[in-house]
Amino acid sequence: VTTVSRFQCISLLTDYGLQDGFVASCHGVLARLAPGVHVIDVTHLVPPGDIRRGAAVLAQTLPSLPHGVHIAVVDPGVGTLRRSLALVAGDHVLVGPDNGLLPPAAEVLGGVGPAYEITSGAAMLQPVSHTFHGRDVFAPAAARLAAGELTVAALGPEVPVDELVQLPMPLASAGDGWAQAEVVTVDRFGNVQTALRAGRLAGAGFALGDVASISAGGVRHPVRYAETFGSVPKGALVLYVDSAGYISVARNGGDAARLLGARPGSLVRIRAGASGTEAYGHALRPPGI
Amino acid sequence: VTTVSRFQCISLLTDYGLQDGFVASCHGVLARLAPGVHVIDVTHLVPPGDIRRGAAVLAQTLPSLPHGVHIAVVDPGVGTLRRSLALVAGDHVLVGPDNGLLPPAAEVLGGVGPAYEITSGAAMLQPVSHTFHGRDVFAPAAARLAAGELTVAALGPEVPVDELVQLPMPLASAGDGWAQAEVVTVDRFGNVQTALRAGRLAGAGFALGDVASISAGGVRHPVRYAETFGSVPKGALVLYVDSAGYISVARNGGDAARLLGARPGSLVRIRAGASGTEAYGHALRPPGI
Amino acid sequence: VTTVSRFQCISLLTDYGLQDGFVASCHGVLARLAPGVHVIDVTHLVPPGDIRRGAAVLAQTLPSLPHGVHIAVVDPGVGTLRRSLALVAGDHVLVGPDNGLLPPAAEVLGGVGPAYEITSGAAMLQPVSHTFHGRDVFAPAAARLAAGELTVAALGPEVPVDELVQLPMPLASAGDGWAQAEVVTVDRFGNVQTALRAGRLAGAGFALGDVASISAGGVRHPVRYAETFGSVPKGALVLYVDSAGYISVARNGGDAARLLGARPGSLVRIRAGASGTEAYGHALRPPGI
Repeated sequence: VTTVSRFQCISLLTDYGLQDGFVASCHGVLARLAPGVHVIDVTHLVPPGDIRRGAAVLAQTLPSLPHGVHIAVVDPGVGTLRRSLALVAGDHVLVGPDNGLLPPAAEVLGGVGPAYEITSGAAMLQPVSHTFHGRDVFAPAAARLAAGELTVAALGPEVPVDELVQLPMPLASAGDGWAQAEVVTVDRFGNVQTALRAGRLAGAGFALGDVASISAGGVRHPVRYAETFGSVPKGALVLYVDSAGYISVARNGGDAARLLGARPGSLVRIRAGASGTEAYGHALRPPGI
Repeated sequence: VTTVSRFQCISLLTDYGLQDGFVASCHGVLARLAPGVHVIDVTHLVPPGDIRRGAAVLAQTLPSLPHGVHIAVVDPGVGTLRRSLALVAGDHVLVGPDNGLLPPAAEVLGGVGPAYEITSGAAMLQPVSHTFHGRDVFAPAAARLAAGELTVAALGPEVPVDELVQLPMPLASAGDGWAQAEVVTVDRFGNVQTALRAGRLAGAGFALGDVASISAGGVRHPVRYAETFGSVPKGALVLYVDSAGYISVARNGGDAARLLGARPGSLVRIRAGASGTEAYGHALRPPGI
Repeated sequence: VTTVSRFQCISLLTDYGLQDGFVASCHGVLARLAPGVHVIDVTHLVPPGDIRRGAAVLAQTLPSLPHGVHIAVVDPGVGTLRRSLALVAGDHVLVGPDNGLLPPAAEVLGGVGPAYEITSGAAMLQPVSHTFHGRDVFAPAAARLAAGELTVAALGPEVPVDELVQLPMPLASAGDGWAQAEVVTVDRFGNVQTALRAGRLAGAGFALGDVASISAGGVRHPVRYAETFGSVPKGALVLYVDSAGYISVARNGGDAARLLGARPGSLVRIRAGASGTEAYGHALRPPGI
């Protein structure tokens, strides 16, 4: 059993939003119980209760963070019998509800488990409210781990990793000249991230510079497989490997999600060869021609 | 007179929003004048000029924070004759305009006063602008308190506490089988916080598990008095004691404020016994029946 | 050549928004490569790709910050041949794309240059993505500067300052009894900042207390030249020197941008003497009359 004992960094992801004092209450608890530990906000704008979105942002962001204790709270079941977890992942510990939010991040951090249910009253702030476990359970437990005051094993009984709640895997498949996949996230710029990992397009016979067509259930649009936004003319679509290693779709200077009508969970279909509307034809000529 | 001389934490609540550089300017001043002091953002999304909202969030969040100097700036009267205050509250100091924003927080922190008007030029950044006292008056005064460079008494003359501007108290009353109260806040999830303190429902004869009806001026809805969101079926309303100790209304997996048509300042009426629309009847059966 | 070697502060301005993990990824890189350095977020809500807005907020905020390395990323050309820059400005270093974002801030910080193109692989995180230079180029370069691990001159070849991309200067002119200027920013409160520096109204013969008329292409409104919002009655317009030293227009208790129909880039015209609609006449009587 890993006995990680001290961390210089705590991170915090929630669906609490920024207009209330909930995030600050958690920061206050961390500052009181683990003074001097560096706190990084991952995001607090996960849509209320959207566990899949929270899990995706967490898994894609934590690899850039220092070793630490990472709190994630998207927790529609707060105060019910759902378990509170501390999940060891390589040199990190993830803390949050057992609802599928944590395991994808644990995997990219290098290992899922061991896992512990947080049951120790000494880990929590008493009295524990029924609706704000971020402040009363997860932040204090994380702070006490980071401060070296408690070990993960002291938080409560071990939970077999194969009993943890898991999210369904997003769909992703590809064959000769085609690929289809669920949309995992849409970012602020309207870039559409699919569940296809970087190598899948090459495996399906697509080469950098190729033109394909793409749809998310609506009109098909031409798209070029290239390196970055500026690789295609303004207004044109580009398929690229994004900074988290997924195949994504962007519109240079625009919003691909809006153009495609794509949302998280939408199915995106990619087919070799241009067959989109003529209106976009000109936009796919390489710059300078 | 309290002569608190050094603080490890400064917090900051404003209505400045996050799209401009105003918050960062305050952080910059704090970093320059009190290097090494930990700064916690309470929120910067108080609606512009909404003193009551700012006062409520401040009073409900500060009890989770470390002892410190707490800056609050919701200040439509900036640059006029309204006073700038440093208000001692237990082991904390509150800094901000004298417009009602600070006293509710001072009360929950364990004491209102003594209070001082900030008039000392040495506390401010010169020249003082007429429209940005967060940067030029409140942040530098707070930084100098936290750094131990100035005492509160050195900021300016004492102001009798009973001369401080006070907000009107929100309405809250309850009797046998009924309660009514003003809505204090609505949070990101649409949870509706009333001005009723935790014990008022019990005092009016309500017991955990009871079904009541509720309205905010529109349609009456059935609601169960319970511990947490998941205590009622998806889509149903729940009355509960929230994490700040107030009676609140939530909709499991939904937005209670939208369903009720409730906003801060709305009057919420609660009556013992179910008498809502039949459409919600099924939703109030306990899970498993 | 300046060889600034160590900074206690790093700041960060982007158009990444707050709902994704992009900002946290940059914070993570900074915490890993420059542990202990204080990080200040300027804003992350620059509208996507809006370089002028980013440049204005940066130039107006950095003067309040400690000496440091300031990262700014509004970068629609990421991954193309646009240069990555480290631009020395007095005792500060600015890091970001060569697209006009940095020079206005460099000027207010006391000097533009020398400038260096960031080309050293040792400054970056390998492998460098094509779409996230905030994480892979700018944050690591800034962290290594702040940590004293690299000097600016070690980042890459010097670039002549007169070859840097520059934004066009906003229009601003004034004569006897009139002034006109482009709108530089509109803030959260709807305050309209023009490109006129503080002294320009006085130079055009306006004195504090004077009534003028103003339009942004639509209806003309009366406005008083005064010190602060509360210098005019509720609902009335006020011309004032804002906290960054520009002539701005506010509406006491309201939103001047909405009333005027003004946006960044709009042309605002100011003319001595009241000639607006009668509806506003009463609002301009001094308080108490």
